[in-house]
Amino acid sequence: MNVLVTGGAGFIGSHLIDYLLDAGHHVHCVDDLSLGRRDNLRHREGHPRFAFTELDLLHYDQLHEVFWDGAFQCVFHLAANSDIQAGTGCMNIDLNRTFLSTYTVLRCIRDHRVKQLVFASTSAIYGDRDELLHEDFGPLFPVSFYGAAKLASEAYIAAAVANFGLQAWIFRFPNVVGERTTHGVVHDFITALEKNPRQLTILGDGKQSKPYLYVKDLIEGIIFGWERAQEPLNYFNLGVESTITVQRIAEIVVEEMGLKRVEFAFTGGDRGWVGDVPRFRYDLAKIHRLGWRAKRTSEEAIRLAVRAELQRRGWNR
Amino acid sequence: MNVLVTGGAGFIGSHLIDYLLDAGHHVHCVDDLSLGRRDNLRHREGHPRFAFTELDLLHYDQLHEVFWDGAFQCVFHLAANSDIQAGTGCMNIDLNRTFLSTYTVLRCIRDHRVKQLVFASTSAIYGDRDELLHEDFGPLFPVSFYGAAKLASEAYIAAAVANFGLQAWIFRFPNVVGERTTHGVVHDFITALEKNPRQLTILGDGKQSKPYLYVKDLIEGIIFGWERAQEPLNYFNLGVESTITVQRIAEIVVEEMGLKRVEFAFTGGDRGWVGDVPRFRYDLAKIHRLGWRAKRTSEEAIRLAVRAELQRRGWNR
Repeated sequence: MNVLVTGGAGFIGSHLIDYLLDAGHHVHCVDDLSLGRRDNLRHREGHPRFAFTELDLLHYDQLHEVFWDGAFQCVFHLAANSDIQAGTGCMNIDLNRTFLSTYTVLRCIRDHRVKQLVFASTSAIYGDRDELLHEDFGPLFPVSFYGAAKLASEAYIAAAVANFGLQAWIFRFPNVVGERTTHGVVHDFITALEKNPRQLTILGDGKQSKPYLYVKDLIEGIIFGWERAQEPLNYFNLGVESTITVQRIAEIVVEEMGLKRVEFAFTGGDRGWVGDVPRFRYDLAKIHRLGWRAKRTSEEAIRLAVRAELQRRGWNR
Repeated sequence: MNVLVTGGAGFIGSHLIDYLLDAGHHVHCVDDLSLGRRDNLRHREGHPRFAFTELDLLHYDQLHEVFWDGAFQCVFHLAANSDIQAGTGCMNIDLNRTFLSTYTVLRCIRDHRVKQLVFASTSAIYGDRDELLHEDFGPLFPVSFYGAAKLASEAYIAAAVANFGLQAWIFRFPNVVGERTTHGVVHDFITALEKNPRQLTILGDGKQSKPYLYVKDLIEGIIFGWERAQEPLNYFNLGVESTITVQRIAEIVVEEMGLKRVEFAFTGGDRGWVGDVPRFRYDLAKIHRLGWRAKRTSEEAIRLAVRAELQRRGWNR
């Protein structure tokens, strides 16, 4: 199959491309390299079924050319701002990178009569809720502009499915960790401990508890859902049932760095920043019923991510 | 109170302005007059508490000046594309007029620290569902780009409430009819019967059944909810429990025009056009519990609308 992966040089996108190439597909990657890294795809350069175009998705004309050449059967649209916290300060980061990028991709999908779209959505569309989050939950009132832009994208995809004869798969990701992450709590903790191995500042009270899905589990879940679910519009939470607290993440980082006697300093409050959702858990019954289940727990995922990042930074215990 | 009404020259906006002026508020109206009509506000020109600026909401700089001068305590944001069907052919109508207009208003609200926003949302955010539509319903998959742009607007408003300390009221309108409508089924039927008083073409099978709320009932509902509901984010279906079929609307138009022996020709199918929602009913328990209820039935509302439009066109039976 000829497929396009937007945001393919990013953390998750590059793992998806690895999977798709290994499965025999022809993969065209577009990425503006604002958050993605060419290095994430270095090992695929020269591959006979792989092409890369550096491109800002807001430029319809350039994207149109890529669609024209590619004759894609499916688009995996992963490009987005991935730094939720940055979007709280500046509204137009998520407007452009998270929502209008989706809009431009949908225009090209319409104009080139592409039949399939797989979209990376997020738990942030649900807002700040205490309940186990079911896919059919409402109302949907995100507390971050990132969540708002992803919900706006879902809304436009739904309208496109109704109007263009497009088939779509929406996967709502939780926190995802693993090789090639570029930011997030694991990075922040490692960087902070490299500077000061005696004390670590933890935003909030450390009790914020979230599931962390290992990136290779996520990719398997996406492919599984894409192959098995065949409604016009398919939508799934992807995640793992176990959760882990911020404090436990800090402990694992300390352990893996081989540090002793690190003092944890908490900034206090029940969340890290405005727009942060301090705890959430997914209802995963729908994707489990389809037959997929994450292989690693949140703690295993974090430990794999910590080890990968320490290795990348040349750490030896 | 100093209030801004966007889209105030439109059908609903002009009725809202009448109400707000009569209640003693200072009202600034902005409208680009693409769908709104200066005539709708002619009777308010020269009013000491009324100002009008012709403005495209996408021009942040111009809107910023209006906010600067106005020192608004509340914004009633009604401006939008109001022709759902037009937005199915051309994606960017609703992107610009329905969603990005909201985005620009939110930027000005943030920059000028406006405390209150009242937003005109729609039943179209719920998509095509058979159930009684409750406010907390999910998933939200609109089937029109109009519905998608309104849901996108709601998502951004929710994030603004969480991030700016804004208080917001979201009212999800059903079909609204009354004096000063500019388009819709009543208009279409009258125009068609003026051309050919013997035959009337009805899209679909005529059995599409929807509630129609009388515009003055709607305005009373908005004001009631705005004054009584005091959560940070308040959201209500506004509507009327009774519904009316397209065929019954046609019969009322024929009756009020004093015509005899009109043959109805149905185009067939269960909906008027792609993106149309053939039947829906609101769960109105939430706004009823607050103490508001529509005074007119759907049939009374349609009859009032037909009479008003015939009078405007100079019809005498």
